[in-house]
Amino acid sequence: MTDLYSRISKNDAAVLLIDHQTGLISGLVRDYGVDEFKNNVLALAKTAKFFNLPVILTTSFESGPNGPLIRELVELFPDAPKIARPGQINAWDNEEFVKAIQATGKKQLIIAGVVTDVCVSFPALSALHAGYEAFVVTDASGTFSKQVAEASLMRMAHAGAQLMNWFSVACELQRDWRNDVEGFGALLAGHLPGYQNVIESYQAQNELVK
Amino acid sequence: MTDLYSRISKNDAAVLLIDHQTGLISGLVRDYGVDEFKNNVLALAKTAKFFNLPVILTTSFESGPNGPLIRELVELFPDAPKIARPGQINAWDNEEFVKAIQATGKKQLIIAGVVTDVCVSFPALSALHAGYEAFVVTDASGTFSKQVAEASLMRMAHAGAQLMNWFSVACELQRDWRNDVEGFGALLAGHLPGYQNVIESYQAQNELVK
Amino acid sequence: MTDLYSRISKNDAAVLLIDHQTGLISGLVRDYGVDEFKNNVLALAKTAKFFNLPVILTTSFESGPNGPLIRELVELFPDAPKIARPGQINAWDNEEFVKAIQATGKKQLIIAGVVTDVCVSFPALSALHAGYEAFVVTDASGTFSKQVAEASLMRMAHAGAQLMNWFSVACELQRDWRNDVEGFGALLAGHLPGYQNVIESYQAQNELVK
Amino acid sequence: MTDLYSRISKNDAAVLLIDHQTGLISGLVRDYGVDEFKNNVLALAKTAKFFNLPVILTTSFESGPNGPLIRELVELFPDAPKIARPGQINAWDNEEFVKAIQATGKKQLIIAGVVTDVCVSFPALSALHAGYEAFVVTDASGTFSKQVAEASLMRMAHAGAQLMNWFSVACELQRDWRNDVEGFGALLAGHLPGYQNVIESYQAQNELVK
Amino acid sequence: MTDLYSRISKNDAAVLLIDHQTGLISGLVRDYGVDEFKNNVLALAKTAKFFNLPVILTTSFESGPNGPLIRELVELFPDAPKIARPGQINAWDNEEFVKAIQATGKKQLIIAGVVTDVCVSFPALSALHAGYEAFVVTDASGTFSKQVAEASLMRMAHAGAQLMNWFSVACELQRDWRNDVEGFGALLAGHLPGYQNVIESYQAQNELVK
Amino acid sequence: MTDLYSRISKNDAAVLLIDHQTGLISGLVRDYGVDEFKNNVLALAKTAKFFNLPVILTTSFESGPNGPLIRELVELFPDAPKIARPGQINAWDNEEFVKAIQATGKKQLIIAGVVTDVCVSFPALSALHAGYEAFVVTDASGTFSKQVAEASLMRMAHAGAQLMNWFSVACELQRDWRNDVEGFGALLAGHLPGYQNVIESYQAQNELVK
Amino acid sequence: MTDLYSRISKNDAAVLLIDHQTGLISGLVRDYGVDEFKNNVLALAKTAKFFNLPVILTTSFESGPNGPLIRELVELFPDAPKIARPGQINAWDNEEFVKAIQATGKKQLIIAGVVTDVCVSFPALSALHAGYEAFVVTDASGTFSKQVAEASLMRMAHAGAQLMNWFSVACELQRDWRNDVEGFGALLAGHLPGYQNVIESYQAQNELVK
Amino acid sequence: MTDLYSRISKNDAAVLLIDHQTGLISGLVRDYGVDEFKNNVLALAKTAKFFNLPVILTTSFESGPNGPLIRELVELFPDAPKIARPGQINAWDNEEFVKAIQATGKKQLIIAGVVTDVCVSFPALSALHAGYEAFVVTDASGTFSKQVAEASLMRMAHAGAQLMNWFSVACELQRDWRNDVEGFGALLAGHLPGYQNVIESYQAQNELVK
Repeated sequence: MTDLYSRISKNDAAVLLIDHQTGLISGLVRDYGVDEFKNNVLALAKTAKFFNLPVILTTSFESGPNGPLIRELVELFPDAPKIARPGQINAWDNEEFVKAIQATGKKQLIIAGVVTDVCVSFPALSALHAGYEAFVVTDASGTFSKQVAEASLMRMAHAGAQLMNWFSVACELQRDWRNDVEGFGALLAGHLPGYQNVIESYQAQNELVK
Repeated sequence: MTDLYSRISKNDAAVLLIDHQTGLISGLVRDYGVDEFKNNVLALAKTAKFFNLPVILTTSFESGPNGPLIRELVELFPDAPKIARPGQINAWDNEEFVKAIQATGKKQLIIAGVVTDVCVSFPALSALHAGYEAFVVTDASGTFSKQVAEASLMRMAHAGAQLMNWFSVACELQRDWRNDVEGFGALLAGHLPGYQNVIESYQAQNELVK
Repeated sequence: MTDLYSRISKNDAAVLLIDHQTGLISGLVRDYGVDEFKNNVLALAKTAKFFNLPVILTTSFESGPNGPLIRELVELFPDAPKIARPGQINAWDNEEFVKAIQATGKKQLIIAGVVTDVCVSFPALSALHAGYEAFVVTDASGTFSKQVAEASLMRMAHAGAQLMNWFSVACELQRDWRNDVEGFGALLAGHLPGYQNVIESYQAQNELVK
Repeated sequence: MTDLYSRISKNDAAVLLIDHQTGLISGLVRDYGVDEFKNNVLALAKTAKFFNLPVILTTSFESGPNGPLIRELVELFPDAPKIARPGQINAWDNEEFVKAIQATGKKQLIIAGVVTDVCVSFPALSALHAGYEAFVVTDASGTFSKQVAEASLMRMAHAGAQLMNWFSVACELQRDWRNDVEGFGALLAGHLPGYQNVIESYQAQNELVK
Repeated sequence: MTDLYSRISKNDAAVLLIDHQTGLISGLVRDYGVDEFKNNVLALAKTAKFFNLPVILTTSFESGPNGPLIRELVELFPDAPKIARPGQINAWDNEEFVKAIQATGKKQLIIAGVVTDVCVSFPALSALHAGYEAFVVTDASGTFSKQVAEASLMRMAHAGAQLMNWFSVACELQRDWRNDVEGFGALLAGHLPGYQNVIESYQAQNELVK
Repeated sequence: MTDLYSRISKNDAAVLLIDHQTGLISGLVRDYGVDEFKNNVLALAKTAKFFNLPVILTTSFESGPNGPLIRELVELFPDAPKIARPGQINAWDNEEFVKAIQATGKKQLIIAGVVTDVCVSFPALSALHAGYEAFVVTDASGTFSKQVAEASLMRMAHAGAQLMNWFSVACELQRDWRNDVEGFGALLAGHLPGYQNVIESYQAQNELVK
Repeated sequence: MTDLYSRISKNDAAVLLIDHQTGLISGLVRDYGVDEFKNNVLALAKTAKFFNLPVILTTSFESGPNGPLIRELVELFPDAPKIARPGQINAWDNEEFVKAIQATGKKQLIIAGVVTDVCVSFPALSALHAGYEAFVVTDASGTFSKQVAEASLMRMAHAGAQLMNWFSVACELQRDWRNDVEGFGALLAGHLPGYQNVIESYQAQNELVK
Repeated sequence: MTDLYSRISKNDAAVLLIDHQTGLISGLVRDYGVDEFKNNVLALAKTAKFFNLPVILTTSFESGPNGPLIRELVELFPDAPKIARPGQINAWDNEEFVKAIQATGKKQLIIAGVVTDVCVSFPALSALHAGYEAFVVTDASGTFSKQVAEASLMRMAHAGAQLMNWFSVACELQRDWRNDVEGFGALLAGHLPGYQNVIESYQAQNELVK
C-alpha cells in the first residue's frame, strides 16, 4: 500500500519542475493568486537548492507561445538537466527525461508543474506506475480553477500519490531544526511573510533588551 | 486496482455525452458559470471530433421541458447514435445505449453529462461494474451546487472512476504535439481564451520581427 | 468492496431521519442556506413518502432546547416509528432504533440528519459495521461549516458509505420515468424551483399552441 | 435630498413586479440560489398581499422564450393590472404601465424584477426622475452575477433609490406587531425557515408546559 | 454635510443595543460566523462599559420566540434602561426609548442590533432625521446574508450614517493609549485573539529575558 | 447632478475600448473568469456594432509585451480609429484620442478597458471633468482582483460615472424589442448561453407542434 | 482496514496538542477565522479535560519567535507532560514525546496542532505507522490556506486517519447524555454560541412559565 | 466637490505609511493573503521611492507587541521622518506628524496603513477635514475582514477620499511611459508577477529572433 507514511529523505529524493513557463502560467493558472503562486514555486525551488537535491527542469515548446521557464528557476539551477521536450505532453514519454531521473539514482520524486491536471498528473501517475514514490507539491502546481485542481488531486491521491505542499516538503527534508537553524530559518522566512513578521517582532524585542 | 494510470488511447476510447439538454442546463446547473460550462461542453465535443472518437449522444424526454440537446452538439455529430431514452434515468438501463457502446468495440468510456450526480454518476458506476474504464469529465458535467458535485465526484473516485477535465482528456489523447501541432493548437486556443491571448501576443511579435 | 455500484432499490431501502430538530437546525447548521436546507430535507422526506419507503424518525432530547422535529416531518409520517432517544448520541446505540430498522427487513439505509459529523456519521459508520449499506444524503444533512462537512464526508466515504443527495436518491429509486411520470415530475418540480421554471415555460407554450 | 429616511407607508405605496418570468429566471438569474430567490420573490408578493397594496404586474414577450410569470404571482393577484409589454424594455416607456401606476395614486414605488440592471434599474431611475420615491427590493431582484448586481445597486443608490429587502419592506409597512401579531407572524414564518424553527421550538415548549 | 469626520467623543456618545436576542440571532443572522458575531457584540458592549458610556438596551417581544437578550449583555449593564418594546419594530417609534436617549443628553449615537436592515437601519435613519449623529457598528449587527447587509449599509451611508466597527469605535473613544494603556490593552486582547497571540509572544519573551 | 437617469441614446453615444490587449488581459485580469471576460468584451463590441455606434480603439505599447488588441476587436471594427498611444497612460492625455472623440460629436461615452482602475478610471474621470457623460461598462473591464475593482468602481460612482454592464448598455440602446426583434435576439443569444438555452427550448417545442 | 468505525473510548484515548504556539498561530494560520480557531482549540482542550483524558503538550522552539503555547492550554493542563522539542519537527522523532504516549498506555490518539500539513500530519502518519489509531481533529488544526488543508487532510485520510472535529470527538467520548447532562451541556454551550442561544431561549421560557 | 478627478502630481504629493508594523500585520490583517499584502505594501513604498515623493513613516508603540515597521520600509527610507507616536491612535493627533506633513509643502496625501478602519481611516478623514486631498491606497492597507474593509472604504468615499490602489497611484504619477520606460517597467514587473511573465515571454522571443 503506497499510502503509508514514507518520509522524504534528502538521500532518496529528486525534484521535477515541469513546465513552469511564463506563457503557461499567465495564460492558464487561475487557482492561486499570482503573488502566492510565484512565491510557492520559488519556495519549492529554493528548498531543493537548500537541500542540494537533484533537480530536473523540463519545458514544452519553450520557443513558442508557452514561453521560457520563469527566469529565477533557470538562474537557481544552472547545472540542472533542462530538457526541452520537442512535443511529448507527458514528460515521462520523453526518454531523456526518464533517463535524467534514473541518473539521479533516487526513488522519491517531488513533483510540481503547470498545469496540475496534465503536466503534473500524467508524469506523477507514470512515476507511480514505474515504481517510484510520487510526492506532488500541490501549491507549487497550478491550473484553470479550483474545481479542476481538486478533481485532479483526488485522482492522484487515489492512485497513491502523496499530496504535499512546499512547506511540508521543506520540513520533512529538514527533519530537525538543529541540522541548520539559521539556514532553514532564512529559507522559511524568505517565503512566508507571516513568519517573517513574527521573526522580526522577536528580533526587534531582542535588540531592545540589549 | 482500477486507480492505476490507465491512459486514454485514441484507439480504445468512446465518448458518452448524456443529457446536455437546454432545459436541464438552464434549470439545474449552478456549479459552473454559464459561459464557462458551455465552453467546457463544446471543448470536450470538439476534442472528440478532433480525434475521431466514436460519440454517443443520449437524451431524456427531449420533447418535454428538458428540451433538446444544445444545438452545437447535434450539429457536430450528425452521424452519431442519438438515443432518445423513453424513460430510463440511468442511460445504462437503456438497451440501445449499451448496444451502441458495445458496437464501438471500445473499453475506455469518456463520460460527461447533466446532472453529475445522476446522469453521469449512474452510468459511470454501471460502466465500471460492467468492466469498462470510466473517465469522468468533471468540468463538462454540471449539477445543482459545488457541494453536490463534490460529493458525487468523491463517490465516483472511490468506485474507481478516473476524474479528468476536458483539457486533460485532450492532452492524453494527443500524447505528442507533433502528431498535429496546428490542429491541436487550434483546438486548445478555440476554447482557452487565456491561451489564445498568449498565442496572439506571440504571433503579433513574430509579425513585427519580419 | 463496498464502493461498487449498489443501486438503491424500492424493495430493499429504508430511510433514517435523525435529529432534524428545530433547535439543532437553527443553532448549529451553517453549511447550507436556510431556504436550501429546509427544502432539501423536505424533498428527501417526500421522496421517501412517494416511494412508500419505511421511514424511521428519531430525536435527541426533544423536550429540551434541541426542540421538536420540524413540523412537516411529523405530519408527513404519522405512522412512522418516532424514537425519542433518552440520551444516546449515536442513534445506533439505542436498541429500539436498531430494532425498528431490523423490523423493516431492509438492508439499504438512506441516512440524513443534523449534525452531519455526529448524528449522521456515527450511525452510518455503525450501520456499515453491522453489514448494512449506507447511503448518506449529504444535502439533507447539515453541520457547523463546509470545512466540518467536508472532513466528515471524506471520513464516511473512506469507510464505504455512498455519498448521495436527495435528487440522486429520488432518481435511483424511480429508475424509469414511465413508472409514474406525473407523480415523479410533481415531486421534482415541488422542490426544484429551477426545474419548475422550465416546466412552466413548457406548459405555457403548450397552452398557447392549443 | 432623496436619501433621507422616507418611510414606506401602507397608504402611499404601490408594488411593481417586473418580468419575474420563468424563462428569464432560469436563463439569467445567478446571483442568488434558486431556492432563496424563489422564496424572496414570493415573500415580497405575499407582503404586498398582506398589506393590500396595489400591485402592478408586467411582462416582456411572455409568449416567447421569456416565458410566463411564475405561476404563484399570477394566482396571488388575479385582479392586478398585468401589462404584457409588446416590446418596451424599460417598463416606464409603456404608457399603460405608467397609467396603472398613476391610477393607484401612490407616490412610493416598491420595485423588484428580473434582471436587476435592466428591468429594475431602468424603471427605478425613471420613477425617480418622474418624482416618485423608489424602494428597490434587492433580494427579490436577480441578475447575471453578484458583480453585476453590485454595480447596478450602487448606481441606483447614487441616483437616490432606497435599497431594501423584502423583510425590511414588510417590517416598515407593519410598523407595530400589535397591528396584527398572528397575521404578520405567519407571513414571516412562512418565508423565513430560520424564524419558523425558532417559533416551533417555542410552541413545542409551550405545549409541554400545559 | 453629515459625512465629514465627526469624532466620537466619550462625552457626547451613547450606545444603543437593539434586539440582540437569542432567538433572533440563532434564527436569522447568517452574514457572520457564530463565534465571530458573538465576540463582536460582546466587544462592543465591553467597549461601552470601559468608557462608561450610557447604554440603552431594547428588545422586541422578548417573552416570545425572539427570546431574551443574550445573557452577557444583561449582566454587563444591570443599571441600563432595558426597554421591552410591546410591538414597535422601529425602536424610535417607542416613546420610552427616545426619552431614554434624550435623558442621556448625548447627540452621538453608536448603534448596533439584529437585524441590520430593520432593527439597526430604521432607528439609525430616524436618528439622523431627528438631528443626531449615527455611528453604525456594522460588525456587531447581523442579518440574513452578506447581500442584504451590503445593501442596507449602502442605504445608511447614503443617508449620512458613519459606518464603523467595534474596533474603530473603541479606538476613536480611546484617542490616546496613554489614557489607560493596561485597561485598553486588556479590552482589545480579550476580543482579538490575533492580537492576544502577539501580546503573549511579547510577554513570554520579556519573561525569558529577566 | 450627474447621477440622475440619463439614458444612453443611439444618437448621442460613442464607445471607447481601451487597452483590451492580449498581454494585459493574460497578465493582469483576475476579477473575472477567462471565458466570462472574453465573452463580455466581445458582447459589448458586438453591441456597438449592432447599433452602429462610433467606436474608438486605443492601445498602449502594442508592439511590446502588452501585446496586440484581441483579434476579434480589430476584425469587428476595421474602419474605427485605432490610436496606438506612444506612452500616455491616461488615454485622455493623448490629443489624437480626444480629437477622435470630438470628431464623433457625441457626448455620451461608453467606456470599457483593461485595467479598470487605470485605463478605464482615468479617462472616465477625465471625461466627466470635460463635461461628457461617462457610462462605465463594468463587466467588460477587468483588473487585478475584486477588491481593486470594487474600490475603483466606488470611486467612479462618487465622481458621477454611471455603472453599467454590457447587457444593460445593449438594452438601453435598443429601447424597444420591436425595433429589431430578430437582430437584437441574435445579439443577446450569441453572448448569453443561459438565454440561448431558453430560446432553443422554445424553438424545439415550436418545431414539435408544427 | 483502518477506516472502519473504531469508536473513541474514554478508556483508550490520549490527546496530543502539538505546537499551538502564539507565534505560529498569528504568523501562519489562515484557513480559519481567528475567533473560530481559538474557540475550536480551547473547545478540544476542555473536552479532554472534561473526560480526564491524558494530554500531552509539545512545542517547537518556544523560546524563539514561535512563541509560547497559548496561555489557556498551559493553565488547563498544569500536570500534563509538556515537551519542549529542541529541534525535531515531527514530534514523533522526539523520544520523550513517544515515551509520554507509551506511558499513557492508550492506543487511540486524538491529534491537533499547528500547522496541519506538518505538525499534525507528520506525527499522525507516524502514529498510524506505529500501529496506533489516529483521530485528527481538523478544526482545531490550522494552516496556510484551505487548499493546503484540504490536500493534507486527503493525504491523511488515504493513510487511514479518521477525520473528526472537536464536536464529534466530544460526542463520541460522551456516548450518552445521561452520563452527565449538565456537565456535557455546559461544555458544549461554552463553545457553541449558536447552541448557547438556543439554550438561553429555552431557559428564559422556562423562567416565564414558573 | 472633492470627488472630481484630481490627479495626483509628483509635485504635489506626499506619502503617509502608517503602522505597517510586524505585530499588527501578523495579528490583525486578514482581508488580503499574506504574500499579496506584503507585495502591495512594498510596491507602494517603491513607487514612492521611484518618484522621489516625500514619505512619512509612523508607528504606534513600536517597542511593545505591535512590533517594528517591516524591515524593508525602514531600509527603503533611511532619511524619512519616522515618528514613533507615544500613544495617539489617530496619527493626525500627533503634532510632530502633522508638522512633518506641513514641512513637505504638499497638499495631496497618499495614505496607507494597518488597520484600514483606524490607522488609515482616522487620519484620512482628519486630512480631508484639514483641507488636504486624501488618496487612500486600499490594497496596501489591511484589516480584520473584507466586511470591515468594505464598510470603512465606503465611509471614506462618502467623506471625499479617493479610493485607489498601488498600481493606479504609480500610473497616475508616471503619466507617460516615456518619462522613464525602463525604470517604470522595472517597478511594475518587480511587483506584478503576472506582468513579469508577459515581459519574460516577450524578451525570450526577442532573444530567439536575434
